Amino acid sequence: MNVAPKKFVLRKSLKLNCGIRLSDCEIAYETFGKLNEKKTNAILICHALTGDQFCSGIHPITKKRGWWENLIGPGKIIDTNFFFVICSNVVGGCMGSTGPSSINKKTGEIYGLSFPVITIADMVRAQVKLIDYLEIEKLFSVVGGSMGGMQVLEWGASFPKRMNSIIPIATSYRHSAQNIAFHEIGRQAIMSDPSWNRGEYLNKGITPKGGLSVARMIAHITYLSESALSRKFGRNLQKRRALSYAFDIDFQIESYLKHQGFSFVERFDANSYLYITKAMDYFDLSNNKGGLFNVFKDNKIKFCFFTFSSDWLFPTLETKTLIKSLNRCGANVSFVEIETDKGHDAFLLKEPEFFKILKGFLSGLKKEYIK
Amino acid sequence: MNVAPKKFVLRKSLKLNCGIRLSDCEIAYETFGKLNEKKTNAILICHALTGDQFCSGIHPITKKRGWWENLIGPGKIIDTNFFFVICSNVVGGCMGSTGPSSINKKTGEIYGLSFPVITIADMVRAQVKLIDYLEIEKLFSVVGGSMGGMQVLEWGASFPKRMNSIIPIATSYRHSAQNIAFHEIGRQAIMSDPSWNRGEYLNKGITPKGGLSVARMIAHITYLSESALSRKFGRNLQKRRALSYAFDIDFQIESYLKHQGFSFVERFDANSYLYITKAMDYFDLSNNKGGLFNVFKDNKIKFCFFTFSSDWLFPTLETKTLIKSLNRCGANVSFVEIETDKGHDAFLLKEPEFFKILKGFLSGLKKEYIK
Repeated sequence: MNVAPKKFVLRKSLKLNCGIRLSDCEIAYETFGKLNEKKTNAILICHALTGDQFCSGIHPITKKRGWWENLIGPGKIIDTNFFFVICSNVVGGCMGSTGPSSINKKTGEIYGLSFPVITIADMVRAQVKLIDYLEIEKLFSVVGGSMGGMQVLEWGASFPKRMNSIIPIATSYRHSAQNIAFHEIGRQAIMSDPSWNRGEYLNKGITPKGGLSVARMIAHITYLSESALSRKFGRNLQKRRALSYAFDIDFQIESYLKHQGFSFVERFDANSYLYITKAMDYFDLSNNKGGLFNVFKDNKIKFCFFTFSSDWLFPTLETKTLIKSLNRCGANVSFVEIETDKGHDAFLLKEPEFFKILKGFLSGLKKEYIK
Repeated sequence: MNVAPKKFVLRKSLKLNCGIRLSDCEIAYETFGKLNEKKTNAILICHALTGDQFCSGIHPITKKRGWWENLIGPGKIIDTNFFFVICSNVVGGCMGSTGPSSINKKTGEIYGLSFPVITIADMVRAQVKLIDYLEIEKLFSVVGGSMGGMQVLEWGASFPKRMNSIIPIATSYRHSAQNIAFHEIGRQAIMSDPSWNRGEYLNKGITPKGGLSVARMIAHITYLSESALSRKFGRNLQKRRALSYAFDIDFQIESYLKHQGFSFVERFDANSYLYITKAMDYFDLSNNKGGLFNVFKDNKIKFCFFTFSSDWLFPTLETKTLIKSLNRCGANVSFVEIETDKGHDAFLLKEPEFFKILKGFLSGLKKEYIK
């Protein structure tokens, strides 16, 4: 794979929901497979909160497998021998796209908190520019889970003529009060770390590791389910035979979470975490155009929704609410709830039923749209 | 009510599970109502993680109503015109009982992290000494919710001859992996605040406010339910008409949580929070004496369990597991799950069905044990 990051620089400034125009906006992206002659085989993958453009292959920085390597690659469900897969780092991110850790070319300084607050719609508008740049008129599909699923829905809502299908996975049409609450606590953890220094830490050579790792640990619990935690860890002790009677690690679950927190701070920027969580909190399609019905009426897209039964971050019920509106629009909607105890994280894991149904949906679309 | 704190000093040192003997141990307590001549009308109330001895009346420090003022007082469900109610601050606490913020009389210094790690059983052994001191042979009942319920179960398991009944509410026989995870994150938030200073902050005139308030916010989400949050807050904006596009407070839920965090740090000691959460994490009755059956066999106690349907911190299922073992023991068990969307917090609120059934249970016991 290509280790040097592919970058695309927007010709014009990017108009943001906050009213500001972001100039010199760069979007880092990766592609996998080959675009066919008629340009009918392109799938855009949208990444989640802490994801990036390396959805397949080996990540050049972490040296780990891409975050959707289970799903995307040669011979896999999203078969890169057939499809041309595009994945870009969101604007506001920290893996090459312009974000709070980038240099503001006007001032020569790192943006920090002077970076404008961005939205899911802003992320999608930047992706549209990338797809234009790649000269793809119509995507075969737009696919993503969690925050990626929010972008997928935004694509369907705002650019319904640019794709044949969308596949929103483990997501919702709006972020719930409980989810906003978890995000706000994560942000408070970061912002109350003195090393955060009101967002100016990179030029001082410090990082708010403590706060960022606590934020990650909080979020990580919401990605799992109680039954998965009980099954994996229960009350098992970590490398000891008896309780420590000290504030060391006693239980495996404590060790696991600490590891999640500590390894995260090595790969993610704290300010990006603030901006991207805020974008998710702001997401509410039902608030656009007077409601979900109006947002999706008169579209010709094929929808295929997936939820996971033990996902308490994006419960199935919310997708069902959206689907009711889509049905009222007469939209072409498939929906499957996958039975699993693996919680929200299931969308990143090998879930045989999920894979089987997704494969079937894609092959149906292939017959229809790629002769 | 009595504002000067009632204190009882243990004559001998308190033997702790960790093997250490805690000397000069003081227990701060309150009583409400009058002990009758035969000493048959005493109810011990056990408080939750952040509770204290002021379960009824007006709290002398916060000037707010006692935490169970809904339930306990003259003419109320636990009627202090009839019952003699005792409530003591747990050992390790910060409302007058000996804990990490107390002075170690041997050194003249504040304990801080040199305070020994305590357990739920240690808390209960200190309460037994208080009941001995009050010369009460047999309690009418031991009642408590959440961590209070853990103490109630420990009383029943270890001192079954000292009461007629126990009433464990919204609790479990052991802390789950997910609950340990939430606690560990709260502890990490405190310990990664530089003002925590490895537990030495009181003598430096500083407090780890940031970390402690994040810990409180995390815990607070677990006390509520998604549906209660949606009903109370939804995505309502806080005193504004449009999104701020800044890292200010946008949503009411954010403002509510911040308030919970900030007001908590005024009344609670960060080290006490570490010690008491650890005690809860260590609690596992199923690990004693080879299992729950053995723990409770041959007791003559009347049990009355309450759970709340939307409580995801202590789900009904866990109480049902315990009740199965109690039934195998032939124990005298009542159990009610109260339908509510108010989550774990419901045990502190006015829940008419809960109150009605508790009243009935107590009046049945009165007929049997107080002629």
